[in-house]
Parts: sequence; structure tokens; C-alpha cells
Amino acid sequence: MIGIGAGDPEQVTVQAVNALNRVDVFFVLDKGAVKQELTDLRQEILDRYVRDRDYRMVWGRDPDRDRTASAYTEAVDDWRRRRADVCARLIADNLEDGETGAFLVWGDPALYDSTLAILADVRERGDLPFEIEVVPGISSVSALAARHGTGLNQVGGAVQITTGRRLARGWPAGADDVVVMLDAHTAFAELTEPDAEIFWGAYLGTPDEILVSGPVSEVADRIVSLRAEARRRKGWIMDTYLLRRRSR
Amino acid sequence: MIGIGAGDPEQVTVQAVNALNRVDVFFVLDKGAVKQELTDLRQEILDRYVRDRDYRMVWGRDPDRDRTASAYTEAVDDWRRRRADVCARLIADNLEDGETGAFLVWGDPALYDSTLAILADVRERGDLPFEIEVVPGISSVSALAARHGTGLNQVGGAVQITTGRRLARGWPAGADDVVVMLDAHTAFAELTEPDAEIFWGAYLGTPDEILVSGPVSEVADRIVSLRAEARRRKGWIMDTYLLRRRSR
Repeated sequence: MIGIGAGDPEQVTVQAVNALNRVDVFFVLDKGAVKQELTDLRQEILDRYVRDRDYRMVWGRDPDRDRTASAYTEAVDDWRRRRADVCARLIADNLEDGETGAFLVWGDPALYDSTLAILADVRERGDLPFEIEVVPGISSVSALAARHGTGLNQVGGAVQITTGRRLARGWPAGADDVVVMLDAHTAFAELTEPDAEIFWGAYLGTPDEILVSGPVSEVADRIVSLRAEARRRKGWIMDTYLLRRRSR
Repeated sequence: MIGIGAGDPEQVTVQAVNALNRVDVFFVLDKGAVKQELTDLRQEILDRYVRDRDYRMVWGRDPDRDRTASAYTEAVDDWRRRRADVCARLIADNLEDGETGAFLVWGDPALYDSTLAILADVRERGDLPFEIEVVPGISSVSALAARHGTGLNQVGGAVQITTGRRLARGWPAGADDVVVMLDAHTAFAELTEPDAEIFWGAYLGTPDEILVSGPVSEVADRIVSLRAEARRRKGWIMDTYLLRRRSR
């Protein structure tokens, strides 16, 4: 499992570069043509950093997830099981004894990525023995904070990293700084915190990067329309944001 | 501001390496002899990655912080002001017009590090104009998760990053996964969550790395004594941990 950063090919660590150069087979779970740009960007990272080494690329079809709102956890569990089937087959069919395979993960493998859990599932089945090594990556959270030149926490304060789905239920208890990932429905626009600020970023570290910051009450509408327009233009969007209210 | 990762010199990004090679002056806020090892490790990173470039190293004395329990925020504010005085003087005395200075930050500059806020304070004073660029780094949080081979969040769940001081008040509301930093008092040992697991790590990414994981009720005592022993032996400790309870 190699974290390859949030999108800027320079945000790959030396450890990741060294790991890329030990890989025999790269496994790619393909989501179809929509995110072709991400596939191209991944290839650019390999072209830039893998030196004089033959490797194989193997594609698997990433199963679709049931995105109906109810039974979210169960739908994800079932999706993960089907992805584990795909991964187990990919590994069994393509990796020889003693070879090294890799999954490249955008951002940091530990944060809102299911590949680690899928590989643990595959290994638990017991018929495919392998070791897992995780190379951490620059998360979109770190990339966002860096581009806005801000910290994530206030002095002695807590930071909550959460999802748009959860934010829609209200400002999380116990944290004045909240990072939101996986928000397809711009939950920040419904916030009623009077003094909240937002630091928003899309396509972080890429030439298409968009950054907006300011009081939520002043910039929310602009972000919603910029986001919709960018998504329409490119066919996909990856964005994340930090919300901050005065420390209480 | 250059994030240089949690301790493993390989966990430096290509972006950080390139930034290191543009620096004329490295500013170091020295905390005294105790953490000499960290100073050595930082020098090792420079020796490894800075190629054929002359740079200057400039040391400032990092003011002590009032660590009495009361008025924590005020004490930190005062400390930050005195650090800003030190930084302003360091920059004014050592950086020529058009030159580039750098502060190297362990982990990620956005997470529980005050340098960014100090530099913002210095810049706000208005008499020393400069631009700030932040290079994100692998945080100890990412390094910890990678070494334990675990994710930080459960499916669709939230993660809270907090301090030992805050954890001592009880499990944070709204998150089943909690990362604790800056915990000098092993607050995890006082937890009463019956099913909580802990993933603990000290000196992450260095030859002295220690990792322990398991149910808090089973491994807390061992961590407390390992931690005390390591701290005695080395004179300092940097550790962090993830607490996880079953998703509710």
C-alpha cells in the first residue's frame, strides 16, 4: 500500500519512491473512463519515479457501490466484500511467489480509503498468504492546510475529521476545527454557526486546483457554484475543506 | 515552513527535498541539549538531501513555556509572543533581501505545531515583509497508522485528533476513533471504555521506534512502563496513539 499524496506528483515521499522501485505488479481498481485524469496522473508518477525497472500493470473492475442513502454501512460492507473478491483474484492470478504487488492510494492510505481493509479481508480468508507494508502519504487534509497556510487545530484544541453525511447532522461536538471529506452535497452551505470560517480546496496540488477561504456566510454560495461548474466541466471532483469556529 | 516527516528521513517528500535546495538560511529554535538527537536527525536530513548548495544555519533560543496547569491558553499565547520576538529578530538579523529562510518542522506543519502561527504573528507586525510557503509533511498520525497497518477511521465514521489534556476529561463525543498527541500523562490508562483498543507508537520511524497495540485494558500498563523506561533512558519521548472503540 503506497500513499502517493493528494495530487501533486512532488508530494510523494522518498520512501514511496523507493517502494515504487521494488514493485513487480501494480494493481489498479478501475472506476471507468470518468476519472481517466487520475489514471493519467498515477501513470505520470510512475514514469517520473520508477527507474530502469520492468513492472506489470494489472487492472481490475472496481465493483459499483449501492449509493442509496439507507443502510450505508451495510452497502459499504457488501461493496468491500465484492472488492475483496476482485482483489483476491487479481493477486492470485498475477503475482508469483516472492513477487511484490502494490496498490497506489491517493492521499494517505489511513484516511477514508478502503484498500487497507480490503487487503486485510483478503488475507484473513487465509488462502493467499502475503505481508502488507504501508507507506504513508500526504493526505488531502495536510495538502489543504498547507495551501491555505493555516494550521488544523487551535491552541490546545481538537480537530475532527468527518464526512459530509455527518456534518449534515450539525457541527460535531467537542471540536472547533472540523475537516470534511467525501461531501458530495456541500453540507457546509447549511451550517448555522454564525462565526464559522471555511478553507476549501478542490483538485489540490494539480493544475486545476481551486482554493477559497473566508466566512462561511460570505463564501458558501461562491464555493457551491464554483464546485458545480468545475464538476460539470471535468466530469468529477475531489474536494475537502476545513471549518473553524472561534475556540470555546 | 517545511514539514520533514515524523522521524524517518525517507518520509520526506520530493517537494520538501526541492524546497530544502532553495534555502539560504535554516532557522532552528533550540530547546537545549535534551533533544540533541532531534537536532542530529534534522542535520542528517539536510546532509542527505541538500546537494552542492551553501546554506547557513542560525540558532535561536526557544523561550520556555509556563507549564502550570492553569491558564493554559494564556500561557501558550505569551509563549508564542516571546517566540515571535525571537523569530522576528532571527529573520531581521540573518536574512538578506530576496533570500529564502526555512523552518523545518517535524511531522506536518498544520498539526500541533506553533511555527506557522508565530510566523503569521511576525508578518502581521508589518515591519518585516515576507511570503510564507508551506510544504506539508507526513504527520506522526499518518506514520503511526502506517506502522500499525490500520486505518484511522471506521467506515463512514469520524476521527478526532486531540490532546492528552482533553482526553483526560473523557472519550470525545461524536468519534469512535481518537488520535491523541501531546499526552505527557498517559491519559489512556484512565479510560473506562470497556472495548477500546489502542495503537501506540513512540519515536516513530527512528531506530528506537516502539509499537504496542491491543485492548487498552490488556496493554495499558505495559505501555505506561515502556514509555517511562524509554523516557528515562533517552531523556525525552515523542509518542502518539490511536484509540478505537466499536462503531456505535
